Amino acid sequence: MDHNLKAIVRYDGTDFAGWQIQPDARTVQGEIEGALSRIASQPIRIQGAGRTDAGVHAVGQVFSCHWPKDPDTDRLRRSLSSMLGPEIRVESIEVVPPDFNARFSAISKRYAYAISLTREPDPFSARYAWCVPWKLDIDYLRTLAASLVGTHDFAGFQCSGSDTQTTVRTLYSVEVVPGGIAGPCDARDLYRLELWGDGFLYKMVRNIAGSLVDIARGAVPESRLMEVLNAPGPFHGHTAPAHGLALMEVQY
Amino acid sequence: MDHNLKAIVRYDGTDFAGWQIQPDARTVQGEIEGALSRIASQPIRIQGAGRTDAGVHAVGQVFSCHWPKDPDTDRLRRSLSSMLGPEIRVESIEVVPPDFNARFSAISKRYAYAISLTREPDPFSARYAWCVPWKLDIDYLRTLAASLVGTHDFAGFQCSGSDTQTTVRTLYSVEVVPGGIAGPCDARDLYRLELWGDGFLYKMVRNIAGSLVDIARGAVPESRLMEVLNAPGPFHGHTAPAHGLALMEVQY
Repeated sequence: MDHNLKAIVRYDGTDFAGWQIQPDARTVQGEIEGALSRIASQPIRIQGAGRTDAGVHAVGQVFSCHWPKDPDTDRLRRSLSSMLGPEIRVESIEVVPPDFNARFSAISKRYAYAISLTREPDPFSARYAWCVPWKLDIDYLRTLAASLVGTHDFAGFQCSGSDTQTTVRTLYSVEVVPGGIAGPCDARDLYRLELWGDGFLYKMVRNIAGSLVDIARGAVPESRLMEVLNAPGPFHGHTAPAHGLALMEVQY
Repeated sequence: MDHNLKAIVRYDGTDFAGWQIQPDARTVQGEIEGALSRIASQPIRIQGAGRTDAGVHAVGQVFSCHWPKDPDTDRLRRSLSSMLGPEIRVESIEVVPPDFNARFSAISKRYAYAISLTREPDPFSARYAWCVPWKLDIDYLRTLAASLVGTHDFAGFQCSGSDTQTTVRTLYSVEVVPGGIAGPCDARDLYRLELWGDGFLYKMVRNIAGSLVDIARGAVPESRLMEVLNAPGPFHGHTAPAHGLALMEVQY
């Protein structure tokens, strides 16, 4: 009998060509499918909640898959983890109802974008935060971030290349909090932008992060934010680099 | 005129063959000497406070060097940082009296050894903490650690290969505190052993960390700690892996 599984995984995306499986590239989906297929002795395909781009991290990515064998989920979690390197950790695996799909059943997601306000990257957070060497007023950044909360057409913050039917999304909260995705024990200069919403368009978080930082550092006028929010798209501004971004949680 | 400089540097030691310069290996000293020599257009040698081993990190390593050029230290710091990759960051450079020597003028040092109490390594702290999958009583670890404070002959905790005249050292404090050298924003399972003393023998911190963890997890009897402390050396126990260790601070 076939079982439907839901798994939560965490990964350092630095050395992966993103989530989605591709020929001749090391991807997170590829690594996990390879390991699961070896355990099951037959090809296993998985469905991720979000296709993180190359270099993007995950604290709480979710995937679902049909599993043709014994659903001893704790044992399977341990076997799978031991086959993957230290860059990917399987946090949990559980049996879910047959209609659960990690992508289509998701009702909201949380992303975090980390910035390091230092002149040069900190060696211990360089892989997990965008080094922003300019002077930045965190309270101002917080005010700008809050102005994006609500239901809007985010087409202006979307990079071309996506195939969504509608570009209207609701952001429940956009906050700036101290601390990065990961960082040194004495970090005083790490902050992260936390976004919680019902869905996110292609590169939307990185485009928001790049725009907010550019405005907060005075390189772009504040009025640009509402111009982009009302633009038909695609985004033409500053896309923040991949390595500051992490998919934190997917809610069902 | 020749100036004597003191610099503080921070590095992720993962991809270096340690501090000390070696032929055909990428070392922190080698990278810094190479960059300084290019800036000065003549060979520059530096003296590090401590020779961290391959894979060991530093939050506050110190080096001194004689500098034959204009001692515009802020400009030099920026030039040097821009020539080094994100794995090494130069925190400060200052002009010091001619008799200052980063190694021989040091009066005390602080080291930290990070442990991650998880079954499998966390992708965001795997490079900076020893993953300890066994059950460990942190209060017991703290009590064991405190018993090492004071002036002792630490020959029994030294690995062979060092050339020190005396093996008597004083540990001013040995504490266990929450948090690693670096780690994820939601870390609950990271702790670090912090040691402050007038000097440390070869691999002494890693041997202490390995011994304390082995006793705290019940693999080795508690009495072993005092046996090793009174042994003539060298150490024959469990040396904790390099990647959990960081040189935190050198005091003068």
